[in-house]
Amino acid sequence: MTSPNPALDRLTCVIPAGGVGSRLWPLSRANAPKFLLDLTGAGDSLLSATWSRLAPLAPPERMMVVTGNAHRESVIAQLPDILPENLVTESEPKDSSAAIGLAAAILELRDPDAILGSFAADHVIRGDVLFRRAVATAVRAADQGYIATIGIHPTHAATGFGYISCGEARTDLSPFDLYDVTEFVEKPDSATAEGYLKAGGYLWNAGMFIAKASVLLEQMALSEPELVDALREIAASWGKKRGAEVRERLWPTLPKIAIDYSVAEPAAAAGKMVCVAAHFEWDDVGDFASVANLLTRGRPSDLAVLGDGAQVLSDASSGIVVSESDRLVALVGMEDVVVVDTADVLLVTTKDRAQDVKRLVERMKVSGGGHLL
Amino acid sequence: MTSPNPALDRLTCVIPAGGVGSRLWPLSRANAPKFLLDLTGAGDSLLSATWSRLAPLAPPERMMVVTGNAHRESVIAQLPDILPENLVTESEPKDSSAAIGLAAAILELRDPDAILGSFAADHVIRGDVLFRRAVATAVRAADQGYIATIGIHPTHAATGFGYISCGEARTDLSPFDLYDVTEFVEKPDSATAEGYLKAGGYLWNAGMFIAKASVLLEQMALSEPELVDALREIAASWGKKRGAEVRERLWPTLPKIAIDYSVAEPAAAAGKMVCVAAHFEWDDVGDFASVANLLTRGRPSDLAVLGDGAQVLSDASSGIVVSESDRLVALVGMEDVVVVDTADVLLVTTKDRAQDVKRLVERMKVSGGGHLL
Repeated sequence: MTSPNPALDRLTCVIPAGGVGSRLWPLSRANAPKFLLDLTGAGDSLLSATWSRLAPLAPPERMMVVTGNAHRESVIAQLPDILPENLVTESEPKDSSAAIGLAAAILELRDPDAILGSFAADHVIRGDVLFRRAVATAVRAADQGYIATIGIHPTHAATGFGYISCGEARTDLSPFDLYDVTEFVEKPDSATAEGYLKAGGYLWNAGMFIAKASVLLEQMALSEPELVDALREIAASWGKKRGAEVRERLWPTLPKIAIDYSVAEPAAAAGKMVCVAAHFEWDDVGDFASVANLLTRGRPSDLAVLGDGAQVLSDASSGIVVSESDRLVALVGMEDVVVVDTADVLLVTTKDRAQDVKRLVERMKVSGGGHLL
Repeated sequence: MTSPNPALDRLTCVIPAGGVGSRLWPLSRANAPKFLLDLTGAGDSLLSATWSRLAPLAPPERMMVVTGNAHRESVIAQLPDILPENLVTESEPKDSSAAIGLAAAILELRDPDAILGSFAADHVIRGDVLFRRAVATAVRAADQGYIATIGIHPTHAATGFGYISCGEARTDLSPFDLYDVTEFVEKPDSATAEGYLKAGGYLWNAGMFIAKASVLLEQMALSEPELVDALREIAASWGKKRGAEVRERLWPTLPKIAIDYSVAEPAAAAGKMVCVAAHFEWDDVGDFASVANLLTRGRPSDLAVLGDGAQVLSDASSGIVVSESDRLVALVGMEDVVVVDTADVLLVTTKDRAQDVKRLVERMKVSGGGHLL
């Protein structure tokens, strides 16, 4: 039995849309970051799918996107319903504390009781009903002054995600699925991940935060008071004549710090963090191995194909072909291969080595291949 | 001490230029057969390199090319010195007995003592001086009425080539390097090839034949009398008014048979075949693994790159990249990979599986990918 949840009417969904996703190069580029890509073959970008997933929770008045200036037009093209006052752009990336903190500061001014839910623009979720139910539970806790996150029941001993260690059930806040956060733990090695699965009580950290905007900022102010002061000053002038001047003066001075460090970990240590244990499918699709697993639904002997015009001829091959062309991709005897066929770059690697694409991209930054990034 | 070799003045070099080389698809195509490709990065095609290698042995009057009608213009473009009367074209491919037999019949009419040397248009040879010395030795034996071939001292237990089993040294014909052919043996399995190397006396069969045109035809006539009759009838009308009519009537009726079966094997059995044991480097570059080995000179950890505009970025990768584009090919952790990047087809396979490209091509012939072949 769930009681009515009027706090949901105060929820604004904030979508931070940043990060190139360099392990997905050459599909991802500076001007085609991961969140603008269709990595599921569904026909829409990860950003657009994120918006659609959240839209039943909040009208456009309470949907906000934070992104880089450079992506403003692309975001508007993909999200025709977005309201101009809810598209927050950054002149340069300053990591998640600044991005989400600025959204919080803007929302706090609009409504002192505003609840902010932050959901990455570039993750894949299957099971939208379960997702929205989890958000509703998180909002209930946020309304009581907690900072809530959503953790995913692990399906395997993943080493590519961080974990949340959960404690006592918080039936005082929600009848189901809500727990204290004992601590956040970094991406584990394989043995540690196996241990988490055996021990139980560990969830994947999906990087979602739901809290009152004011609570989030007060928590952030404990470790980063100057950052929060600056964000509130920028928010106070937001949309006003002097707004540009204030932003241009303050934004470049802000520290780059992930919200995990400025908010989530200290809040957990202080007993102010709770976690919804959720059952929907979730993936941060960090590299092409993840994309392949997503498309083949984990069947390793399959060959995944992504791309509208993709033509693939395979002889005893598995892995993934991502094609932006209509030329034929012929594979003979390639196991777990990753082929990414774009107009100016062809990448060939394996699922095992897909993580190392990032290293190649770093090399190109210093060795003069920057125009291809 | 080698005595003068006036028979060399009666040598006509015949270059049969046929065969697509389907294991080199998608680089090789119906309209870009293997012999028209540059597989060494030297800047000229295999055909052009073959011509250049033979040119010191004979003037253009004694250089002949046999090829398909479809390749006439390409051959002329690559061989500016070829004389029109020495470019023999086939309306359809009829295998090597017909192609080389027709050249022999034409040469026999020009000079009853003409010596024909047949050298494939699509092999790679390094060591031109050694090659020409071997041809001169073969011509000496041919002048004595033998059918000579040239065998290559094996450098490893290759399973992709046929072998020649050699018998007694024929110092009566040539002071050095000439032996009776005991038999021709087909491509062996690995253990058999190792055995050949251990036993000694086995050479790689490079598919070269040097004989008086009349001797070659008489040998062929023993097993294929009707074929030889037809070839002599076509030759008799060659370049004459009624030539086209005779060819159109007879050529389609000719049997397809390799010269190995119509001439070489029966001649060996009859004791009429001799072999020059040669020390030049030779490869029939049958697949991309061969091309890679050729370009890296056998160093397996190297990454070979073929193509004028090729740009390759490699992280811990080996094998070969063949590029017809100027886009970047990025490889991460690919061992012994074969990447062939053409305008309309991308092939990815391994050196181990390079032979199986032929199977893919066969599949495409029946499954509707013929326009890409």
